[in-house]
Amino acid sequence: MSENLVELTATEAAGMIARGEISSEEYTKALIAQVDLIEDKVQAFEHFDSEHALEQARARDEYRAHGNALGSLHGVPVGIKDCIDTSDYPTENGSKLFADRRPFRDAAVVAKLREAGAVIFGKTVTTELAFYQPGKTRNPHDLDRTPGGSSSGSAAAVAAGMVPLSIGTQTNGSIIRPASYCGVFGMKASHGLVSRTGVLSHSQALDHVGPFARSLDDIALALDAVAGYDPEDPDTKSYAVPSFRSGLRENPPMTPRLAYVRTPVWNKAEKATAEAFEELADSLGEVVQRVELHEPVYGHAWEDLRAIMTVDMAHRHGKIVGRGGDVPSQALKDFIAEGRRVPAVRYLEALSQAKQYGRSLSDFFDYYEAILTLASTGVAPGLESTGDPAFCSLWTLTGLPAISLPLLQGEKGLPLGVQLVGPAGRDARLLRTAKWLLKHLSHDQEVEIA
Amino acid sequence: MSENLVELTATEAAGMIARGEISSEEYTKALIAQVDLIEDKVQAFEHFDSEHALEQARARDEYRAHGNALGSLHGVPVGIKDCIDTSDYPTENGSKLFADRRPFRDAAVVAKLREAGAVIFGKTVTTELAFYQPGKTRNPHDLDRTPGGSSSGSAAAVAAGMVPLSIGTQTNGSIIRPASYCGVFGMKASHGLVSRTGVLSHSQALDHVGPFARSLDDIALALDAVAGYDPEDPDTKSYAVPSFRSGLRENPPMTPRLAYVRTPVWNKAEKATAEAFEELADSLGEVVQRVELHEPVYGHAWEDLRAIMTVDMAHRHGKIVGRGGDVPSQALKDFIAEGRRVPAVRYLEALSQAKQYGRSLSDFFDYYEAILTLASTGVAPGLESTGDPAFCSLWTLTGLPAISLPLLQGEKGLPLGVQLVGPAGRDARLLRTAKWLLKHLSHDQEVEIA
Repeated sequence: MSENLVELTATEAAGMIARGEISSEEYTKALIAQVDLIEDKVQAFEHFDSEHALEQARARDEYRAHGNALGSLHGVPVGIKDCIDTSDYPTENGSKLFADRRPFRDAAVVAKLREAGAVIFGKTVTTELAFYQPGKTRNPHDLDRTPGGSSSGSAAAVAAGMVPLSIGTQTNGSIIRPASYCGVFGMKASHGLVSRTGVLSHSQALDHVGPFARSLDDIALALDAVAGYDPEDPDTKSYAVPSFRSGLRENPPMTPRLAYVRTPVWNKAEKATAEAFEELADSLGEVVQRVELHEPVYGHAWEDLRAIMTVDMAHRHGKIVGRGGDVPSQALKDFIAEGRRVPAVRYLEALSQAKQYGRSLSDFFDYYEAILTLASTGVAPGLESTGDPAFCSLWTLTGLPAISLPLLQGEKGLPLGVQLVGPAGRDARLLRTAKWLLKHLSHDQEVEIA
Repeated sequence: MSENLVELTATEAAGMIARGEISSEEYTKALIAQVDLIEDKVQAFEHFDSEHALEQARARDEYRAHGNALGSLHGVPVGIKDCIDTSDYPTENGSKLFADRRPFRDAAVVAKLREAGAVIFGKTVTTELAFYQPGKTRNPHDLDRTPGGSSSGSAAAVAAGMVPLSIGTQTNGSIIRPASYCGVFGMKASHGLVSRTGVLSHSQALDHVGPFARSLDDIALALDAVAGYDPEDPDTKSYAVPSFRSGLRENPPMTPRLAYVRTPVWNKAEKATAEAFEELADSLGEVVQRVELHEPVYGHAWEDLRAIMTVDMAHRHGKIVGRGGDVPSQALKDFIAEGRRVPAVRYLEALSQAKQYGRSLSDFFDYYEAILTLASTGVAPGLESTGDPAFCSLWTLTGLPAISLPLLQGEKGLPLGVQLVGPAGRDARLLRTAKWLLKHLSHDQEVEIA
């Protein structure tokens, strides 16, 4: 049976472990075998210790054997981006500036995964400081291409079947873009839904944490485990979060109306990509209406995100990068230098504008259930970059929940994500719409391992 | 009896009205008579309509006559600084830029006062945009001197017996300083204790709202009415606030230990002022210990406040001041121009530093019950300025609760406030300490009308 174990979704694996059909150790061993088989090529992990993973799995099995009630992820291995603190594995933020850094405590999201019973399998590769300089990871669909960034290893590890689930972060396009390139599900929940405590911080306004998986159910399973209030993260909300898995079990009360949104940067879409998306939109018929987000209103959003991100990164990382000599990349140094030149009034204006974009889009959702748009400008490019985040920026800046669904194929049959964006705080409803869309397109199945 | 009505504290007046010993109308008429007598000289009000005040008072009396339960300020007239929105009176922010501005709704603090039964008596003079350019108000103790700013009219109206209670705002030294110059009690509660919704905003980090009164009990009475959560002000806290009046009825469990703090700008104190304070500290004996706040740690706090304030004012008011031609003062224009030049990283560093000062002072309060320091650098100067806020800046920047107690006399017998500063969120406890200090100095009585 262990030949097929790596193909299980997290939901399936958790069910089988809970029912005693497999042990966590058995499942973890199967994933380790998959790592042994292909990690040399994919290089998704920065830190991985098979013995440590197995120890956790055995402890989970023993806990179950004592008849204890189990968490929703009991015994399921999860990959954690290496800019998210773990008390067992090192956390090096993709840079020698943080070599051998060993946090004293788990990030809130890791602590919540452990509470749910997860096995912290290993730390996945992040680009340098979760910025643009590529790490070593390759795209499992084509080893000469990038998996995308900055959550490179988290996306690739899930696509390659080394873990069913992983956690990444997004400050611009670092979850949605690699999910699109690697052909997996990836979700950036509403800003403030998942705590950032213990996560490398770029910008309080822009930083998000979210899961990668090979099924929509697994995205909901992961969010149910990690979402919620954290007094240490001032943007989390102190009210109850809905059950995301319940959201998936519901049907929309009526056929959702989707807005096919072309943002002012739509011309960045590659030809084949734009055509594939156009075809999908056509196939949906009246469900989809075309909407332009007008340049005069939204045209400056990309500059606004850049102003906020350069300033916040210069503020948080300027000193350590400045002391780093030749270690930091030139791209990172340039970005920080740019941030140092931004006047404070420009920064505050960009933050005000971000709120304004959010408000005007929120009116929009009175009429449309969700925005249907591209997750990336094209398929994964070569290894020299991690691709263009332009199709994610507006949704990150406004903090809206966004999910990439592996629905399209672009050039050379490479995967390409369709992005659904919903109103702020309506993440469970967005998942329900995503489920509806998958069913409607008869695509409601797990993604196969690359 | 009406000769003496103007001398009542708000607590006394509210009690007499509640018991039916006087009517709100009778009391309000006495205050109007006081306005008629001295407002020509003091000029504390920007907007005052005796008929409107009397209408409210009569409505309060009628409400009481129907046997309704009464709020804590039932029938008591209160003066409101003219940068705080009122739905009945205009709110012109001390500038022709806002001439004839009529808000649609009350500021949160005004709404709460009305809920408590207060009569909104009139709008008190603020300096231009609650900044430094003096308004028309004069100090009731010496008409050739400033009442201080920016809450000039609120302090002067209380000192002159035209209202027992008024509300002001402080972004640097705008409550504590005029309270000191006018010889009344003034309190800037902890940052976030009183909502700023509907108040002219300079800086979310620095803006505070607080009361002026002629007795400590009245400060507690006012805070009980206006403190609390407001979902529209993100800095207010969603947990219960203590009863400030209860705090005053308690005795400290032991003799409080006070820190006589000389900040790095202590050399700004005028000689006679420093001597008067020194004498007070000596008279307290072992209760007081001398503590220096060291220059290397705290020396930049004044620049940090200035960076935050210039930037936030440039961000919020830059456009309207820029369009204002000759209307805005040169000082305001210069301040805003300065804010436009501050880099965003400097601004964020100043905000981080402010938190750092707050944290290091919080350790301090593990040992000392409160800081005892001067409220102003000297007695009120002439009418050409509103005086120096330097002795308030650090406590505003750190958001700590501060109260000015009219305990000293400086040059020519002019009033001079002693400032008590407490740990964040421990406002009721600070009031208890203030009460103890007044008793200890046998000064536990109301301040006389100037």
